[in-house]
Amino acid sequence: MEKDTLDPWGSSTIKDYSRLQKEFGIEPVAPLLPRFKKLSNHLSRGIDFGQRDLGRILDALSSNRPYAVMSGIKPDGAFHLGNKMTADDMVFFQGLSKKATVFYAIADVEAYADNGLSFDETSKTAIRNVADILALGLDPDRAVVYKQSEEMRVMRMSVIFSRGVTNNMLRAIYGERQIGLYLSALVQAGDILMPQLADFGGPKPVLVPVGADQDPHIRLARDLADKYGGEFGFVRPSAIYHRLQFALTGGYKMSKRSRESGFTLDDSPAEASKRVLSAFTGGRDTVEEQRRLGGRPDICPIFDLYRFHFGLNDEHVDRVRQECLGGTRMCGECKKEAAGLVKEFLEDHHKKRDSLMDDAKELMAKSRKLLLSAGK
Amino acid sequence: MEKDTLDPWGSSTIKDYSRLQKEFGIEPVAPLLPRFKKLSNHLSRGIDFGQRDLGRILDALSSNRPYAVMSGIKPDGAFHLGNKMTADDMVFFQGLSKKATVFYAIADVEAYADNGLSFDETSKTAIRNVADILALGLDPDRAVVYKQSEEMRVMRMSVIFSRGVTNNMLRAIYGERQIGLYLSALVQAGDILMPQLADFGGPKPVLVPVGADQDPHIRLARDLADKYGGEFGFVRPSAIYHRLQFALTGGYKMSKRSRESGFTLDDSPAEASKRVLSAFTGGRDTVEEQRRLGGRPDICPIFDLYRFHFGLNDEHVDRVRQECLGGTRMCGECKKEAAGLVKEFLEDHHKKRDSLMDDAKELMAKSRKLLLSAGK
Repeated sequence: MEKDTLDPWGSSTIKDYSRLQKEFGIEPVAPLLPRFKKLSNHLSRGIDFGQRDLGRILDALSSNRPYAVMSGIKPDGAFHLGNKMTADDMVFFQGLSKKATVFYAIADVEAYADNGLSFDETSKTAIRNVADILALGLDPDRAVVYKQSEEMRVMRMSVIFSRGVTNNMLRAIYGERQIGLYLSALVQAGDILMPQLADFGGPKPVLVPVGADQDPHIRLARDLADKYGGEFGFVRPSAIYHRLQFALTGGYKMSKRSRESGFTLDDSPAEASKRVLSAFTGGRDTVEEQRRLGGRPDICPIFDLYRFHFGLNDEHVDRVRQECLGGTRMCGECKKEAAGLVKEFLEDHHKKRDSLMDDAKELMAKSRKLLLSAGK
Repeated sequence: MEKDTLDPWGSSTIKDYSRLQKEFGIEPVAPLLPRFKKLSNHLSRGIDFGQRDLGRILDALSSNRPYAVMSGIKPDGAFHLGNKMTADDMVFFQGLSKKATVFYAIADVEAYADNGLSFDETSKTAIRNVADILALGLDPDRAVVYKQSEEMRVMRMSVIFSRGVTNNMLRAIYGERQIGLYLSALVQAGDILMPQLADFGGPKPVLVPVGADQDPHIRLARDLADKYGGEFGFVRPSAIYHRLQFALTGGYKMSKRSRESGFTLDDSPAEASKRVLSAFTGGRDTVEEQRRLGGRPDICPIFDLYRFHFGLNDEHVDRVRQECLGGTRMCGECKKEAAGLVKEFLEDHHKKRDSLMDDAKELMAKSRKLLLSAGK
């Protein structure tokens, strides 16, 4: 049997999510669901399948103590569906408590180093990206957005961490990689641990919502939290893992590198629905066969669109699945319905986002002020 | 025959400076001396023995074009004699042209990462260190001082460079090292190349005065200048190499780690002369033998004090050497004379430095303003 790989920089193949538990120590989410007062779509639909120390966040919730939710984006283009998944989790966990603060990192140094994008360019992209999250429901009053290029704390921490990790430790987590990727991993560990610095109120639970392929970064940040616990008082950051969506072209992971594999929140509703209509599906070779055997929603990127993002509610998603399995739903009509939902979502999202551009700028300016004065 | 090693982080042994040419491609300084209108003590006494592309600086001088002189200090303690050597070179090359600008990096992030020193602590040390250089003759009007912790350009460049170097390239230059040291090397390459950024007038010759043991950093910066020449227009930085002083305890390199191996510009004149008086020398076992065979100035840390720092002029240094070789100068009297010169120098230096503390603060504030506005 082929081994699942978790490669934050390449293409991960995850066929068996339950094996991640055995191999990498990711715990299942399901046993913790009763502790939630309400569930997100990601939780109720099994999209958020795994976790590390999520209990720490639930403890903070039940005792009304502060916690942070941390994530980031590389501003090298439009907001894609993977970014939306992370954003949906951020919004949900921010919404659970008035004591939750979101930290959102704009990885403009990485966009410059990897993609040659100037800070001017990425600055514009970043504002759109932040407007995207606001449109998805982020509360700007409890959010701190920062650009890597302006935040020395993260850089300092990555230098400190680089002195404390051995090459063997990095090789054990990531395999043999070039130094640039190791450094990028240390910078991300800095991002993840920053909310626990004294400047931001000191040690606290921090939840990082990520795709399962990003788990190596979480393991590194947790190792570093242990290693520097004495000096900084860090508690191990928590993580919640979402499944990876199937690409519209049939592969295992949507990728920015392949436009056809998905669409972004910048695409026109018409363009996005066109891509949905021409996508790969889990359907059978003939209509006859499909009626007889049913479709295969569990390998279908169109079903993923319903399940991960655009299903109206859990009942709707479940109905789509049952109809597909039962052979009463054909791929053509199913795609058409999905395309309509995508179109509707994008039209609505674009309207919201356009009206939130000024709020995005304001949130960034407010955050910058806070970060410059924090700890002084 | 033992191989000379150049280890910027450990103890280098250099017994044969001419071999550095063959093994590492360091060129001799001597053939270029006729092109200088005046010579520094380091040049006339053969202390600056090697160079790479020093001709580029001489060309800039003869055509009255701008160039920069770049160096730095880790603010983890007092200014030692190695720092003084670099400072003397900086002051000399700044003084040769009104178009020369000094860039001086305060490596406070490294002091924090390596020595656990807070930015508050290192900030105070940095002011003293800058006052030390001013007392040694630096012209503050053509100098830019910056702290690593406040200068994102260097951090950004090190991230960019980390994407462009391969582990093999780093191993070839430094040997197999932990990632922290590699990162520190990339940060120093950022320091060395920063004066050539568009924010500071773009590509120009940059001279880095260093001890021979720091050559690996120069090689890396030159490789990166080539690699990123297309993107940034970098010209290869130039370097001038000074010999390493013998330790007062007899080893090959003075070290901050061993207090007895030297003294610092912070030590009291009394304490410093005491250490000089109890130093190892190149003398013979008995007075009789010394009269008959002469002393060995070329392995004597006391002679190094005359030659590198405290000899009144070239004639004085030469006289000390001849008397020693001729067996007419005994170690006791020689040490006493050296101790007197050290005492006099330190008394004078402390007076100067104390009166320059405000100028040091002013230079740092002025530099900070310039760096924040550069390129805007």
